[in-house]
Amino acid sequence: MTQPNIGVCYYPEHWPEQLWASDAKRMRALGISQVRIGEFAWANIEPRQSHYEWDWLDRAIDVLSAAGLHIIMGTPTACPPRWLVDALPDMLPVDEHGRTRGFGSRRHYSTSSVEFAEAAIGITTAMVERYGQHPSIAGWQIDNEFGCHDTTLCYSPAALTAFHAWLEARYGDIDALNTAWGNVFWSQTYSAFSDVGFPIAVTETNPAHRLAFQRFSSDQMCAFSDAQLGVIRRNVHDDAWVTHNFMGNFVDFDHFKLAADLDVATWDSYPLGFLDQSWFDNETKARFRRSGHPDWAAFHHDLYRAVGQGRFGVMEQQPGAVNWANSNAQPEQGMVRLWSWEAVAHGAELVSYFRWRQPPFAQEQMHAGLLRPDDNPANAHPEVAQFSKELALLRITPRQQSKVALVFDYEAAWMTQIQPQQQGFDALAVAMAYYSAVRSAGVDIDIVRPDQALTGYAVIVLPCIPHVSPELLASLQDSTAQIVLGPRAGSKNAELSIADGLAPGSLKSLIDLTVTTMDAMREGVRVGIDEQPRDWFVYQWLEQTETAQQAHYRTHDGRGVVYQQANCRYINACVSDAMLADIMASACKDAGVITETLPPNVRFTRRGRYRIAVNYGSRDRELSKSHHYVVGSALIDAYGVSVWQEPE
Amino acid sequence: MTQPNIGVCYYPEHWPEQLWASDAKRMRALGISQVRIGEFAWANIEPRQSHYEWDWLDRAIDVLSAAGLHIIMGTPTACPPRWLVDALPDMLPVDEHGRTRGFGSRRHYSTSSVEFAEAAIGITTAMVERYGQHPSIAGWQIDNEFGCHDTTLCYSPAALTAFHAWLEARYGDIDALNTAWGNVFWSQTYSAFSDVGFPIAVTETNPAHRLAFQRFSSDQMCAFSDAQLGVIRRNVHDDAWVTHNFMGNFVDFDHFKLAADLDVATWDSYPLGFLDQSWFDNETKARFRRSGHPDWAAFHHDLYRAVGQGRFGVMEQQPGAVNWANSNAQPEQGMVRLWSWEAVAHGAELVSYFRWRQPPFAQEQMHAGLLRPDDNPANAHPEVAQFSKELALLRITPRQQSKVALVFDYEAAWMTQIQPQQQGFDALAVAMAYYSAVRSAGVDIDIVRPDQALTGYAVIVLPCIPHVSPELLASLQDSTAQIVLGPRAGSKNAELSIADGLAPGSLKSLIDLTVTTMDAMREGVRVGIDEQPRDWFVYQWLEQTETAQQAHYRTHDGRGVVYQQANCRYINACVSDAMLADIMASACKDAGVITETLPPNVRFTRRGRYRIAVNYGSRDRELSKSHHYVVGSALIDAYGVSVWQEPE
Amino acid sequence: MTQPNIGVCYYPEHWPEQLWASDAKRMRALGISQVRIGEFAWANIEPRQSHYEWDWLDRAIDVLSAAGLHIIMGTPTACPPRWLVDALPDMLPVDEHGRTRGFGSRRHYSTSSVEFAEAAIGITTAMVERYGQHPSIAGWQIDNEFGCHDTTLCYSPAALTAFHAWLEARYGDIDALNTAWGNVFWSQTYSAFSDVGFPIAVTETNPAHRLAFQRFSSDQMCAFSDAQLGVIRRNVHDDAWVTHNFMGNFVDFDHFKLAADLDVATWDSYPLGFLDQSWFDNETKARFRRSGHPDWAAFHHDLYRAVGQGRFGVMEQQPGAVNWANSNAQPEQGMVRLWSWEAVAHGAELVSYFRWRQPPFAQEQMHAGLLRPDDNPANAHPEVAQFSKELALLRITPRQQSKVALVFDYEAAWMTQIQPQQQGFDALAVAMAYYSAVRSAGVDIDIVRPDQALTGYAVIVLPCIPHVSPELLASLQDSTAQIVLGPRAGSKNAELSIADGLAPGSLKSLIDLTVTTMDAMREGVRVGIDEQPRDWFVYQWLEQTETAQQAHYRTHDGRGVVYQQANCRYINACVSDAMLADIMASACKDAGVITETLPPNVRFTRRGRYRIAVNYGSRDRELSKSHHYVVGSALIDAYGVSVWQEPE
Repeated sequence: MTQPNIGVCYYPEHWPEQLWASDAKRMRALGISQVRIGEFAWANIEPRQSHYEWDWLDRAIDVLSAAGLHIIMGTPTACPPRWLVDALPDMLPVDEHGRTRGFGSRRHYSTSSVEFAEAAIGITTAMVERYGQHPSIAGWQIDNEFGCHDTTLCYSPAALTAFHAWLEARYGDIDALNTAWGNVFWSQTYSAFSDVGFPIAVTETNPAHRLAFQRFSSDQMCAFSDAQLGVIRRNVHDDAWVTHNFMGNFVDFDHFKLAADLDVATWDSYPLGFLDQSWFDNETKARFRRSGHPDWAAFHHDLYRAVGQGRFGVMEQQPGAVNWANSNAQPEQGMVRLWSWEAVAHGAELVSYFRWRQPPFAQEQMHAGLLRPDDNPANAHPEVAQFSKELALLRITPRQQSKVALVFDYEAAWMTQIQPQQQGFDALAVAMAYYSAVRSAGVDIDIVRPDQALTGYAVIVLPCIPHVSPELLASLQDSTAQIVLGPRAGSKNAELSIADGLAPGSLKSLIDLTVTTMDAMREGVRVGIDEQPRDWFVYQWLEQTETAQQAHYRTHDGRGVVYQQANCRYINACVSDAMLADIMASACKDAGVITETLPPNVRFTRRGRYRIAVNYGSRDRELSKSHHYVVGSALIDAYGVSVWQEPE
Repeated sequence: MTQPNIGVCYYPEHWPEQLWASDAKRMRALGISQVRIGEFAWANIEPRQSHYEWDWLDRAIDVLSAAGLHIIMGTPTACPPRWLVDALPDMLPVDEHGRTRGFGSRRHYSTSSVEFAEAAIGITTAMVERYGQHPSIAGWQIDNEFGCHDTTLCYSPAALTAFHAWLEARYGDIDALNTAWGNVFWSQTYSAFSDVGFPIAVTETNPAHRLAFQRFSSDQMCAFSDAQLGVIRRNVHDDAWVTHNFMGNFVDFDHFKLAADLDVATWDSYPLGFLDQSWFDNETKARFRRSGHPDWAAFHHDLYRAVGQGRFGVMEQQPGAVNWANSNAQPEQGMVRLWSWEAVAHGAELVSYFRWRQPPFAQEQMHAGLLRPDDNPANAHPEVAQFSKELALLRITPRQQSKVALVFDYEAAWMTQIQPQQQGFDALAVAMAYYSAVRSAGVDIDIVRPDQALTGYAVIVLPCIPHVSPELLASLQDSTAQIVLGPRAGSKNAELSIADGLAPGSLKSLIDLTVTTMDAMREGVRVGIDEQPRDWFVYQWLEQTETAQQAHYRTHDGRGVVYQQANCRYINACVSDAMLADIMASACKDAGVITETLPPNVRFTRRGRYRIAVNYGSRDRELSKSHHYVVGSALIDAYGVSVWQEPE
Repeated sequence: MTQPNIGVCYYPEHWPEQLWASDAKRMRALGISQVRIGEFAWANIEPRQSHYEWDWLDRAIDVLSAAGLHIIMGTPTACPPRWLVDALPDMLPVDEHGRTRGFGSRRHYSTSSVEFAEAAIGITTAMVERYGQHPSIAGWQIDNEFGCHDTTLCYSPAALTAFHAWLEARYGDIDALNTAWGNVFWSQTYSAFSDVGFPIAVTETNPAHRLAFQRFSSDQMCAFSDAQLGVIRRNVHDDAWVTHNFMGNFVDFDHFKLAADLDVATWDSYPLGFLDQSWFDNETKARFRRSGHPDWAAFHHDLYRAVGQGRFGVMEQQPGAVNWANSNAQPEQGMVRLWSWEAVAHGAELVSYFRWRQPPFAQEQMHAGLLRPDDNPANAHPEVAQFSKELALLRITPRQQSKVALVFDYEAAWMTQIQPQQQGFDALAVAMAYYSAVRSAGVDIDIVRPDQALTGYAVIVLPCIPHVSPELLASLQDSTAQIVLGPRAGSKNAELSIADGLAPGSLKSLIDLTVTTMDAMREGVRVGIDEQPRDWFVYQWLEQTETAQQAHYRTHDGRGVVYQQANCRYINACVSDAMLADIMASACKDAGVITETLPPNVRFTRRGRYRIAVNYGSRDRELSKSHHYVVGSALIDAYGVSVWQEPE
């Protein structure tokens, strides 16, 4: 693994050809070595059925290559042209109300459309046959932001047919499905797979039905991606890598599965836009509106490092205000540099900005780039220049394994979405809260797949994992790490029924307790903790447990919170940030993991011999003067970065 | 009428047959004598068209009977099987947007589908022919929770055809309809009944049109129920009673009409789930989230006692957290016992819990039962045991007539929903506020139908009754009781036009005033009352009146509130709880009805010679030490119950 | 121009014929001289296809004329009868979800339906042929409240066909459209006009596409109106004028275009209903709920004076509580008189009340009139009587030109709605804030069209005008007035792409700065201003500018706000009311426009030699004792009016 690359997203088709050469030269001058192109250009490449226009793209590749840029080529399947929709009207996705979702933006296709799948392979094949061996094309991106705009689930006739086949493959015969889902309830029994509809009915449908549809939809996305991946692999040179650009706050399909055969995972990091659209409360959204939440990007970096099995990058880094949130804040000065350093700190091989020049037209005209529409440098430009120069001075090595592993499971997110029990309960939000609690103590985290070996970790955190596979259970049983289980752990079987013997189900082999029922708390309700400060409380969720263990804490109304047996803690509630930080610090201490007291809104991350500090706060903060700073200094500015080299 | 029965809802089809006998034995041990079965089991009874499987149900009845349990048999028409939907696709309901509401949950039928009506009679006939004479089957429940999931109104072609016939039957000729509705307005005149559509248009449709569609839809529900009732009556033994299980906060059809020929009304009491879904403000919802509102269950008990013409029970009593609210709180310890006693206090013949054992699968897997999914007793189990033992010590007699009658009218609720004039104005909420005002003074209430004789009452309360029938008017005129009229009384005629001579219309014979206009107040607006404490105010609604009477009060901006003439008070506003309590106490005093000062959140109810006190508050309270307590003591615990026997 | 007329809306078809004569007499006694009739009476005039019933209308006209009333005749095309919908089912509008919007209220037609357009011309022709020469018919109103109930945009097949033709007419060939819209983005290129759909897709569609559809829809409305106008013009006597009654808070079509050939603009002034439905915050809505916002009616008067090219009136004046808002407050005593005087102050030729008598039936039965349903005078009646008498004492002359011009552009409103960038940013709200800032300093305003000559103005205010036409630019460049530009000025070209050279685009010739990016602020975020009081802040929107100019102010975080060059100010943010008032006062001062310090909630307006003061506040206020008062006195009551005559 080499020094991280700096990249940019570029749309030669948007600009006069005479600009291309100077654009390429200016990119190089800024330290950019990678340029992504092509991913929305289907109509330019194939303006009419089977009529290809390669000339412009040949020339663009020539110009960029000539400047020394490496190219990341996107397949343009996220934007099928108008003529294709006319030819294949059944390719369009259908929403849950049965309404066709038409042409006029992007992602107007169903992953279940056989005809469209063929067309997508067609354009991909044409591209890789022409460019697959081009030495300047370093990598390929499949499609763009799978699932964006709620396109994972589709309710078309083609999707229903495919769902039936998927069900048959999973359950074998219909009685097995009836049993697995508990269809004896409410006379929901089916006599054939073709009886099963979409999970839309007069009222709530069977959670097992909904989970099956989500799994099916996820698998359809994976199959759609894999088909392109196969064609690309067969046609590109050996050094070319293949990726997809994933999103933030997004769990609609299983990213671990989809990325299983990719070389590297990339993601699109928009810390401000996604904060605005997230589950955080209005106060948090207002406080961090121009910097992003201090753990949001980091969480996703660590997540996508897991998705990429160790290899990840940022394909689209927010460079200024975007256009697609409800409130499109302008980043504080310094944030683009900070976000870039943070990506590097977490192991990124690529930091690529979206986009080179802000276009004056169409949907994203209010989305900032590195250049303004008038061709002058935008706010981010000098920050990228600074980052580029700073980065060049360092010798970055691969990210080391962390001491703390946090298990994230896409199916867990689906299960809590399908069955929140308390409005707003969300496994993703819980995972990020646990992540923050550890990170704010200066401790690095690896996010890990639920089916991944857990060797080498001193602390293993499972923030919210309703279903625990036998493999995961075995890994945990084999581990001597400190194990922290969050609410709902082990509460369900694979079909979203209640686990045998109640929660935590098979995890009882780690900690001997039974969750007998739970209390869902309305938004705004907080129950305080005896003998603890006011910022310690439970909210949203509190489980009643039956156990011989003493609870670590009691609520003011006498209910036990947090249980421990040997190396396993069970947190049977949503607990406040302050309380969670203390619990996680204890687990770290018990595991011999060193924690630190960081200034507010400051985070430390280690990559190889470097330690990178970032300051998400509006005040300058003092760091230790004894470090050997290679970027910044012991006075870390508001929205600033300091990097020091640790003694070997 | 005998001692109240304790019951439970049971689904033998959900459990291995070998559990049935021990389940039955454990039920008996808990004091349970009644068990409801069958109401969702259509697919188990008739898995294929005309192919019946009775064996399992025969055996279940045998096992339960053998244990000494009485059976309440539900007709399973709320859950038509998949094969029936395939055979009769037009049976499905259609929503107001014209979208068919499909299979996959329950209540997927239109009451206007002639074919489905036949199928429903078919399965009902088959069941009553087989079991109608079984001596252990004590009662029959028709369908389940009519109207649940917004299924009263249906927009199918069959519904439109039936609506046309209903209109013709009501109005005779189309000109009469045009006149009654005022269709001269906006050129809405029709030339034939078949011209009339559903009340959905570019903007607001004629309120008379909406009211007619609501009345029609209510009548369709009644007809659907009556058809089953007829078949049941003809086939069951003489001791069997017939009921339906109604819901809370629910007024979509006229329950008085539907229950007219039932033997007894039952309802499903979920004090926490319904509080979460109710009109109460967030503060109230948070305060009572684990106990329910102190007057909510009581109001419904008294309402369903009226619906059942004196005979009612609770068919489904919430036993723990449910799964279907946005926030599913866990009841405080003691509440299941409290709710059970409260039902008895209000005259219930049956307190039946939903359900015996929490299932691990399907939609209601997170809904508590008396047993947990692991077969151990759930939280409610010891409370039911306690209640059962306590109840056995007493000799309960029928509920006596109260001194205070509160008139409730389903059509009043429809009228205010159709024409709120102030968002959120709701006759049901107003009725409950008046109910609370009286109940918090320790006074018992009978809720009465608008067409019911009012003899024997000392106070008659009409919280919100826009249309007053000639019969009701005559009853009021004949009465010497203190009469309290709330806002909008008499403001409309039967077709939801403004009453002749303006509000209160024909009620001017009781109190000589005219409501000339009104001021709707936005949420949060409060107007204080001169010379009164700060918790006295009007909100939401204030009518301007023209009268020779002096107002009892004046708002700070000089507007009159509350008028009285002889034995009739008119409350021309929504007034705060404190103010309303004072007004009602005055009316009681004038009527010679004794009021009491109760501790906060405590309520007293008399049944026969017993007085039952329940404490919805989180603090213990002291009651009079001079009573002869038969349950509890003079120190009533938080969420506790005390019962004393009054001297004869 | 003569003394303003007093009018009323009357529906003879709603009342027994024997009431007509006395109604007419009572109108005259109240000072009413104009009566609008006919506009919803299609079914009464043509109850069956081509079968006309003129008798009743002939008689109504006779009775009203005989009483000396002038008639305003409305064409009834807003209410097509049921038989017409049966004959022309394709005439119905279709919503954005593809659902047909049916019969049962009003405005159930698509302006793109060729068949309906013919039918509308048919009934109009029949009416003008019969009544066009009637000497008592003073004016004609076309249809009613165009666009009400979201009927400007229609998604019917007919609309799509018409849209294609419109696009072809505008762009000539499809490549021009592709270029203008930037369809190279996301492969949105079209190969034929018939390829273009409605702007509904998987996600956000091209803003240029949405703008084109809005312009098309506006033009369809204009064409529909113009067709009627042509028929009317050809058939009526020379003294008859033609108008349309526009609405408040409403910008869905270009009113300047639609009214271009009308004689006079009228509008329907419902200060309380529209406040409830507006963008104002809940605190403001609660404070002014019974009076309306002090600048809301005035803004619309000045706007419709512009729409009518100097001639306007109020066709429907709110006389009491209405029925159609979420909260229907009752006006404070005095407000109907105040609103009437305010209309006169702003130049109205007509103040007409909606409606004569409140009907007891149908949709608007809860909408107050001058008479109650029981035929007694309603609250507004004595206020109209007072106004009528007061008005008769004065000799009103035409409204003079103001010193301050405020440019309002319907396309600006569409542009910010299509591309708010900050949720809630709305050019109409910005315009009203600027209007208030000037008006609260006692200064009169003319609202002007963007293509209007600006000669004679000392201050020209452009609150929010993203696209500036060459004509407007030239006018501004020629002007020596103080020019105030609000945020987003000049930021876009005519196709809603970013202006060449960035904002303020061509306006850089007035002030040399460049808006490089902007910061959108969430609701609730406020950034204070250095060295200024706490009620000075920016919110919602703050642009970053590049300029050699010094900013007038700095935010607490150091960002420049308000720039000036020579006679041109640029306000690059949404600034608080207090700050905006100060900025506008400075501009007025620099222009030699005299400002005054008014009591809170009081406004002054000059018409000819009269100065009219109105008090929207709940406290009496003192005005100068040195004036010669002709209405009221130097003590202006709460909700009162005072008028004085200025020395010549």
